Amino acid sequence: MNNKINWARKDLLAISELSKEEIELILEIASSFKEVSTREIKKVPALRGKTVVNLFYEPSTRTRVSFEIAAKRLSADVINIIADSSSVRKGESLVDTGKNLEALKIDIIVLRHNSSGAAHLLARNVGVSVINAGDGWHEHPTQALLDIFTLKEKFGYIEGLNVTIVGDILHSRVARSNIWGLTKLGAKVCVCAPKELLPLDIEKLNVRAITDIEEALKDADCVNVLRMQLERDEKKVFPSVLEYFKAYGITSERLNKLKKNILIMHPGPLNRGVEISSEVADSQNAVILEQVTNGIAVRMAVLFLVSQGRQLYAHSH
Amino acid sequence: MNNKINWARKDLLAISELSKEEIELILEIASSFKEVSTREIKKVPALRGKTVVNLFYEPSTRTRVSFEIAAKRLSADVINIIADSSSVRKGESLVDTGKNLEALKIDIIVLRHNSSGAAHLLARNVGVSVINAGDGWHEHPTQALLDIFTLKEKFGYIEGLNVTIVGDILHSRVARSNIWGLTKLGAKVCVCAPKELLPLDIEKLNVRAITDIEEALKDADCVNVLRMQLERDEKKVFPSVLEYFKAYGITSERLNKLKKNILIMHPGPLNRGVEISSEVADSQNAVILEQVTNGIAVRMAVLFLVSQGRQLYAHSH
Amino acid sequence: MNNKINWARKDLLAISELSKEEIELILEIASSFKEVSTREIKKVPALRGKTVVNLFYEPSTRTRVSFEIAAKRLSADVINIIADSSSVRKGESLVDTGKNLEALKIDIIVLRHNSSGAAHLLARNVGVSVINAGDGWHEHPTQALLDIFTLKEKFGYIEGLNVTIVGDILHSRVARSNIWGLTKLGAKVCVCAPKELLPLDIEKLNVRAITDIEEALKDADCVNVLRMQLERDEKKVFPSVLEYFKAYGITSERLNKLKKNILIMHPGPLNRGVEISSEVADSQNAVILEQVTNGIAVRMAVLFLVSQGRQLYAHSH
Repeated sequence: MNNKINWARKDLLAISELSKEEIELILEIASSFKEVSTREIKKVPALRGKTVVNLFYEPSTRTRVSFEIAAKRLSADVINIIADSSSVRKGESLVDTGKNLEALKIDIIVLRHNSSGAAHLLARNVGVSVINAGDGWHEHPTQALLDIFTLKEKFGYIEGLNVTIVGDILHSRVARSNIWGLTKLGAKVCVCAPKELLPLDIEKLNVRAITDIEEALKDADCVNVLRMQLERDEKKVFPSVLEYFKAYGITSERLNKLKKNILIMHPGPLNRGVEISSEVADSQNAVILEQVTNGIAVRMAVLFLVSQGRQLYAHSH
Repeated sequence: MNNKINWARKDLLAISELSKEEIELILEIASSFKEVSTREIKKVPALRGKTVVNLFYEPSTRTRVSFEIAAKRLSADVINIIADSSSVRKGESLVDTGKNLEALKIDIIVLRHNSSGAAHLLARNVGVSVINAGDGWHEHPTQALLDIFTLKEKFGYIEGLNVTIVGDILHSRVARSNIWGLTKLGAKVCVCAPKELLPLDIEKLNVRAITDIEEALKDADCVNVLRMQLERDEKKVFPSVLEYFKAYGITSERLNKLKKNILIMHPGPLNRGVEISSEVADSQNAVILEQVTNGIAVRMAVLFLVSQGRQLYAHSH
Repeated sequence: MNNKINWARKDLLAISELSKEEIELILEIASSFKEVSTREIKKVPALRGKTVVNLFYEPSTRTRVSFEIAAKRLSADVINIIADSSSVRKGESLVDTGKNLEALKIDIIVLRHNSSGAAHLLARNVGVSVINAGDGWHEHPTQALLDIFTLKEKFGYIEGLNVTIVGDILHSRVARSNIWGLTKLGAKVCVCAPKELLPLDIEKLNVRAITDIEEALKDADCVNVLRMQLERDEKKVFPSVLEYFKAYGITSERLNKLKKNILIMHPGPLNRGVEISSEVADSQNAVILEQVTNGIAVRMAVLFLVSQGRQLYAHSH
């Protein structure tokens, strides 16, 4: 695999920074790693003797477990640091924590942090690889990569696809990373939310912004349904779950009005009956669990590539 | 070992469902695995490249650690998910969590849950193996298996043994699993508690129910002393620890009145001076720590068998 | 390596108990392990098939992670038990917990506990190895060993070195372990703190105790700056962080007055602007991150040696 790799980054911080070719390389490597998880012995030695640290300042079992499994299938050792139960309490700064981890001769930090830009800050200050596993409202690049991987697997291509993202676009790092990735690969992206949950100037990212859900679904090949975190809805755009479901919920009634079947994606965990009906979530067109499966392949690819990229980085520093 | 295995289940959910032959098979396999933990290098490759997830909705370090060690001695990768510190907070259902884990291509879920029937619910909805590590007041099959394994090791046989279980039978999944297992193998089981802590119709399970502790110990070959969780004693059957100890505590005075030495078992952790005196817990007749040792062997056997059983299941589905 | 080892202890509990030769042996073995963490594949099989349990009754991510990485680089399996999130809640005693771990056939317990003497208590009651990772105000032997290892690496010798330790000496297990180790190897140790934070009779440990920071730094080759835990300063020796920094903080102004450059050490995590200025912490003379790196080598050495020592112990018991 090594001889065809053209990847020079020690980190994966944001889809916005990647070229089309880099995104395609990740998808290609992920494709070759996907088979590993179907083997009798689900392990390759690619990262044997390397140490991957999951450094999570926000709880996220799903993402942590996905990275942990991906790293272990590459034979890496994994160390979990969950900020809640840790001496992160003692108030050491992110950069000092990163430098300490570097001094422990670990290889990759997978960082989840509630501040936008945290992954960049860390990556600038350490020589080890940093993978952004979600930073504030900014980006969640591996989620977008697994979404795009799944689209490519289902449709065979990305260029020209109509992808609609529905939900709280304003606060969603998943939306932001998807927009960057999909537009770079030539998809036509439409975001749909009530206007209070749409970022100002979102059109500058080359997307259509629509408040009418029926309109947003009309020409879509796929709808990516964001998790609605009503507990974060401070402005009370929606007074209740039911009202959100009525206005923006993805239901069979809504989908049945469309001219064709469209692919249903969701980053999980599902709020059944809030942003999506159970019927739709469990339907033939939903690929929600395939996204989860593809997350392992994509994260294996990213762990592998940044590890390669770091060696180039080390030689040049 | 493979050629003599006759195990078709992908899950281990309840002793009540197992045949005598299945129980005996587990004990036999456990017996062969026990030796592994005495080796210089305590590892066999039986589950190499497999992923075992400890999914614990109730904290239980003892059971989690025992399964984690058992899985690692079989060379499996282990992922711990402790519900307290996890995005289980985000309210995803057990079945959705299980389907996500399945999509991650993991192999075995070890589930501890506070609801009776949780393990069955999960097992019906996923293709991966599920091992019940305690569900509500229902069953805790591996605890009973290690208790029975220990009895067999000490006496050489189970059929005809007189086993008395003392404590809060009503709320004890350990008692329930032991009753099923022991009676299937032909032991005579007596349960002993104040009548408020005895389930109605408990005799239908083929046991004698006795409220008088002296009577219950009289013919016993072994007494299995349950942990008394006075904090759960909502009806205030016992106003104090001291009163419970006086009425039902296993003490040298009580044991010295018996015609013979009897074996002392306890599932741990010990409440010294509540359900058992320190003198008895640390006596020659106590096999409490041997139970802990045997727990590893039994859990290795169960992990191994469900993994085999799942392959049969996968071929037939 | 084995043929030259002269180590008979199953435990590492306190530097106060070690001979000069034993300390030197640890440093020598650590030196040979340091290279492992610079390899492409950072792993040696020394503890393959062994189980190391991190049993932490106080949270300390730094120490836990350092031991976890050290153990994994020796190919051991690692089990983390953090008392907060565990059935340690259920109130089992330390000795019972230790006996249970022993019954699980684990090999080494790394214990962090808030009570002085906890590691000794545990070690006396179990046959497995116990490594003290900090017990109350008593000792933190591996921290002192990594400090001494770093000094030796920087200066080439310990005998005759002038080492000043600044901070809350009274409550510091790090100070205590350093004093024992350094004086055994012939260094001249000076401790510096306001007199309320100096133990009575500290001079009996063969150190100079000085309250004047300028005086304490005057002849030093190295200053080891302790973390100031103002939240523990119950007597309110210092009403504020700023006052402590003014009185005892290690700053460039203070260091520039000295005749020579001195080495700056700190056990971490740093309180920048409390016990040390950022400028000093990040200066050329600071070896704070090298201490972290050396912690892995020292802990690998200790894990390896107690494992060897335990085999001798097992043969003689």
